[in-house]
Amino acid sequence: MVFVIERPRGTRDFSVKEMEKRKFVEEKLRSTFQSFGFQEIQTPTFEQLDLFTMKSGESIIDELYSFTDKGGRNLALRPELTAPVIRMYVDQLQMESKPLKLFYFGNCYRYDRPQKGRYREFMQAGCELIGTNTPEALSELIAMAYHLLVKVDIKDITLDIGNLKLLTMIFKKMNINKDQQKQLFPLIDKELFSDVTEMLEDFNFENNEIKQFISFIQQSNIEEIECYLNDDEDALKEVHKMKQLIHFLDSCFEVKDFHLNLGIVRGLDYYQGVVFEIKAPKLGAEKQICGGGEYDLISLFNGRKTHTSGFALGFDRTILSMELEDVSFPSKGLDYFIVPVNDDMIDIAIQIAMRLRLKEKRVDIDLMKRGIGKAMKYAGSKNTSKVIIIGPREIENNMVTLRDMATGNQQMLSIDTLDPIEA
Amino acid sequence: MVFVIERPRGTRDFSVKEMEKRKFVEEKLRSTFQSFGFQEIQTPTFEQLDLFTMKSGESIIDELYSFTDKGGRNLALRPELTAPVIRMYVDQLQMESKPLKLFYFGNCYRYDRPQKGRYREFMQAGCELIGTNTPEALSELIAMAYHLLVKVDIKDITLDIGNLKLLTMIFKKMNINKDQQKQLFPLIDKELFSDVTEMLEDFNFENNEIKQFISFIQQSNIEEIECYLNDDEDALKEVHKMKQLIHFLDSCFEVKDFHLNLGIVRGLDYYQGVVFEIKAPKLGAEKQICGGGEYDLISLFNGRKTHTSGFALGFDRTILSMELEDVSFPSKGLDYFIVPVNDDMIDIAIQIAMRLRLKEKRVDIDLMKRGIGKAMKYAGSKNTSKVIIIGPREIENNMVTLRDMATGNQQMLSIDTLDPIEA
Repeated sequence: MVFVIERPRGTRDFSVKEMEKRKFVEEKLRSTFQSFGFQEIQTPTFEQLDLFTMKSGESIIDELYSFTDKGGRNLALRPELTAPVIRMYVDQLQMESKPLKLFYFGNCYRYDRPQKGRYREFMQAGCELIGTNTPEALSELIAMAYHLLVKVDIKDITLDIGNLKLLTMIFKKMNINKDQQKQLFPLIDKELFSDVTEMLEDFNFENNEIKQFISFIQQSNIEEIECYLNDDEDALKEVHKMKQLIHFLDSCFEVKDFHLNLGIVRGLDYYQGVVFEIKAPKLGAEKQICGGGEYDLISLFNGRKTHTSGFALGFDRTILSMELEDVSFPSKGLDYFIVPVNDDMIDIAIQIAMRLRLKEKRVDIDLMKRGIGKAMKYAGSKNTSKVIIIGPREIENNMVTLRDMATGNQQMLSIDTLDPIEA
Repeated sequence: MVFVIERPRGTRDFSVKEMEKRKFVEEKLRSTFQSFGFQEIQTPTFEQLDLFTMKSGESIIDELYSFTDKGGRNLALRPELTAPVIRMYVDQLQMESKPLKLFYFGNCYRYDRPQKGRYREFMQAGCELIGTNTPEALSELIAMAYHLLVKVDIKDITLDIGNLKLLTMIFKKMNINKDQQKQLFPLIDKELFSDVTEMLEDFNFENNEIKQFISFIQQSNIEEIECYLNDDEDALKEVHKMKQLIHFLDSCFEVKDFHLNLGIVRGLDYYQGVVFEIKAPKLGAEKQICGGGEYDLISLFNGRKTHTSGFALGFDRTILSMELEDVSFPSKGLDYFIVPVNDDMIDIAIQIAMRLRLKEKRVDIDLMKRGIGKAMKYAGSKNTSKVIIIGPREIENNMVTLRDMATGNQQMLSIDTLDPIEA
């Protein structure tokens, strides 16, 4: 029997080709975060288990990779990055000048049933905005999420913006109590409007009330909401905030297409105020690619109260969306592959390679002593731009043969002109 | 009582400043790996526990973060990256054309007592060369390790190259048996030469034999070794290989300073043939920054036999060495900080920001509605190059004020000339 150790279920190895894609996308996202004035941080891969149960309740333990270390501490591989970042903020960053605009990339872990686009180890990109909740700042946050996806050429996306404060005020005015809200939330989240209608009928609401509620959560119109809540001063303030936010997105942040949608409730208890989701419909059932909004974790972690918002972007789904939209990924390959035709040419081959490497060129040398034909084939498999052939007759005159792999053209060149031509 | 969740012992949060350093170093190392024709891959953060016990024995379990997943599988956070990469190779890459030159960055985990420069979660860079063991290829591998450190401006390093085959042949010729070798290895590894002498005396070796052995492992000279082993044909082959390797390093790969040192035995059982270590003496007790050599893991994992070599580079120690040598790290900061002097200027401020962001500039807007003085202070804290002040009088003439934060110079500029000037 041949004993083979398998990769753990739900995890992945990334080949050279896949890593090229991932690094390309990561760099695009990183420079976009930075162009919006966000700065990168990093937290540990595992945290104390309490951090995640405090945020999400004990039930999350079932979805976690948790373990006890040799000191008896309960630890868990992080399932998400917001709780660790807020832990770090409360720990170390509370005195920094505000707003704090932080972003990060990190692997996260969930003990999930593996399925298409869902893995047990997956990468998330995300950010937190700490210290402000002005409409300018929140619209900038949402605009950044949108432009991150635009920047990697994903065209087919939908952006929906909700507001949990306004939804709560509508609940209050309709006299839908907390218990009823809890039952409604999952149905609203899944856009099961006929089920929402049925449940409201069960709660003995009148038809016109139900119809209006469905309209609020299906085709939300800020004027309609303003009209409905016009006797509540707090609500009008929140309406005004949303109007400004919509204005900034529309007129300043170059976000072409988005919808106000009070049906966006997000899965988690800790969101409040403005929330948003970006979906890539081409992804099918698992189409949400980005989600976030205003939340409070700082008070839970005993930090000094301040406004916080942020979002997470699924890195794997981002790449999957790009692939589904046939976005082309640049392939780097080798700049040069150097072939010494015999053993006497090896020294000079290495010396030329080192000269090109000092100029940051990607260079490989044929060190397998195979024939030129096989060496060419290998160069091709490594996506090489140019092959340099070093033969004894040429080298006597300080010359080499340069072959362009795209055109097949070959020319003789002086060694000294090799670098400047390509610099 | 205020309840605060602490970061797990031995782990770290990386601040904005630290991440800038780490990303700078990572990119330098990445481009150097690539310039040598190596290509990046990635494996999962955890593996089956067996993978690591097969390589290093059951005793490694004490140093691992191991856990059982909900399916009853024994898993472990990886303590190192070679075993996972060879697992991936045996799994998926055996059919690729050789040589395979793979590099990677990854966090690793050891349940160690935390101390200076040693963490429970730490990053390693490393590489594997699969499919060749020619002196050209092995000297290129060693040269790359050296140039990785040169590239990040670490000047104070020592490179020692050993050869376990030659050492074994010397043991054989001296009639030092396996059991005695095992006792000697840790002493040789720690350069405890007087202890080695004592032990050989205990083994009843003669003084001149002991003296010669110490000379082999302390100031190794390839001619001396050749002379000693000249009746062993296999030994002379290996001597010839080392001579070539030394020639290539010296004359072709621009490795200025290195020593043949048969005292380099490496801690692990699985090394064989050429081995090497790079130390940064400034690091003190924990001064080894890079180590590697020829090894065999493929046959253990039931792959088809082929030559393998590689090395690991401690990322944290690399950064620590750079700091100890006062290497300067570039700080990115913001290209522009835009200050609208009143609410009417916010729209145009955002529009200008978005125009600059599309050109990949790092731009932030003052969205806190504080005074210009405070905004300037904030811009300074974010290491800003230029501040753009947008006032109502200027904007009427399509102008803004541009302040150079380094010189303090201010000038009025037309909005339309803002981008091209900086492009």
